[in-house]
Amino acid sequence: MKIGIVGLGLIGGSLAKAIKKNTDHSCFAYDINSKAIADAIQQESIDGSFVPEQLSSFDIVILGLYPDVTIDFINDNAAYFKKGGIVIDTCGVKVEIINAVDKKLNDMRVYFIGCHPMAGREFYGFEYSLDNLFEKASFIITPTENTNDKALEELKRFSKEIGFIKNVISTPKEHDDVIAFTSQLAHIVSSAYVKSPSLLKQSGFSAGSFKDLTRVAKLNEDMWTTLFMMNKSALVSEIDNIIEHLTEYKTALITDNSKELHKLLKEGRMLKEKSNKMNIEK
Amino acid sequence: MKIGIVGLGLIGGSLAKAIKKNTDHSCFAYDINSKAIADAIQQESIDGSFVPEQLSSFDIVILGLYPDVTIDFINDNAAYFKKGGIVIDTCGVKVEIINAVDKKLNDMRVYFIGCHPMAGREFYGFEYSLDNLFEKASFIITPTENTNDKALEELKRFSKEIGFIKNVISTPKEHDDVIAFTSQLAHIVSSAYVKSPSLLKQSGFSAGSFKDLTRVAKLNEDMWTTLFMMNKSALVSEIDNIIEHLTEYKTALITDNSKELHKLLKEGRMLKEKSNKMNIEK
Repeated sequence: MKIGIVGLGLIGGSLAKAIKKNTDHSCFAYDINSKAIADAIQQESIDGSFVPEQLSSFDIVILGLYPDVTIDFINDNAAYFKKGGIVIDTCGVKVEIINAVDKKLNDMRVYFIGCHPMAGREFYGFEYSLDNLFEKASFIITPTENTNDKALEELKRFSKEIGFIKNVISTPKEHDDVIAFTSQLAHIVSSAYVKSPSLLKQSGFSAGSFKDLTRVAKLNEDMWTTLFMMNKSALVSEIDNIIEHLTEYKTALITDNSKELHKLLKEGRMLKEKSNKMNIEK
Repeated sequence: MKIGIVGLGLIGGSLAKAIKKNTDHSCFAYDINSKAIADAIQQESIDGSFVPEQLSSFDIVILGLYPDVTIDFINDNAAYFKKGGIVIDTCGVKVEIINAVDKKLNDMRVYFIGCHPMAGREFYGFEYSLDNLFEKASFIITPTENTNDKALEELKRFSKEIGFIKNVISTPKEHDDVIAFTSQLAHIVSSAYVKSPSLLKQSGFSAGSFKDLTRVAKLNEDMWTTLFMMNKSALVSEIDNIIEHLTEYKTALITDNSKELHKLLKEGRMLKEKSNKMNIEK
């Protein structure tokens, strides 16, 4: 097949490298950053570049763009996609993207399917892309009533072929609700965590737990602002939830209730063990 | 030198292994868990066992016990320690330990010095101990006006000898304030994080950020309850602080203020980068 990648950043670049590493498909890219394109060609991560007017030559088009840019790009270039071809996005939110483009494209026989490859790094740009970024990652697919069955089957084969460990089928709404917890909340908490007056006194006083809790505070604020705004209500509910629980620990401390604190910690430990077990079993 | 270790769990066991690996000192241990002692002898992690009445034969005694047990053990066995010998604890809080035992022991010419080896794992017990647990870790020492200078210098040499990357000298109060942020808050936040109704729906929807944020929710609630209770006021102030900041992100979301959200995320990202830079430079 002939694959076209729009947006050759961390995600688009890593997908290009995984395609070249694991398959015989040819892979071309479009990016407004000409250095990314030149580097990718030089490193043989892609076979060449293209412009949007050439989109109709690709069997699968992968959009590796910010959520708002994804919608704009599709609206501006819908006419160029190949009829009967597959188009996927890779955004961290699904409902808003799908509401904007899913019906429109599928009605045109451009088989759009919302996707979310579950991996990332606290760096961005093609220079940080890796051919094995997705090796242990799941590939979330959010089909709708507009989705073409044959295209869905082909996409599932394609994701396994390029190295994802499994496909996870979800509704767009379920995806956004769960992602608010597993990914978006993690970034908010990490960002809030570093805002303590103690932060710049901690050299020599920190071990693994501090490093883990604050790693993703180093985020791309342009992209994450958009993602958070597009999933506001689920994210606010998760923030409310963690604040409520933090307050329980605080109350136990203030009231000198070590029995209650012990109970709260034990509950957390047991939930974490249960969740580890589920992840291993599935 | 002859080293005695009291409490052969994760920390005591890892110190024993590091001593045997990196030095020629002999190393003996006491633990009420006879299996840990038998395993350690069999694995040649220690040269043998001892009972508290034999404490006077050790040049350095390392207490690898929970904070409350540390205080009780010292009170019960103070008379047995070698005059002119060094005794250190390894607890995650310092003010309460030092208030309880520092003057008393030093007045007896038992050179007690409060310490905190900065490493750990989300497992406990001798079976999880590692000879390289402390290899990239700092060794925090909290001397007081009772501390013997010669003993302090000897302890600094000893910690480098067994593999710590550096000694960090701190007051007990500064230690407890900073540790409330770098370690205790991390455990509370992680424990609160897993208490979302979304937790058991997340299989296949999580990547590195979820894993990092929740790793230390798997904690030993007996030990951590005591540590938290002994450092209540600093910890409550850190919990208040993160709740206050989480509320700022929430408010930006609810009021649809993407400019403010962007600013909050950017501030967090820049603080994280600054803190990374300080840790590398120091």
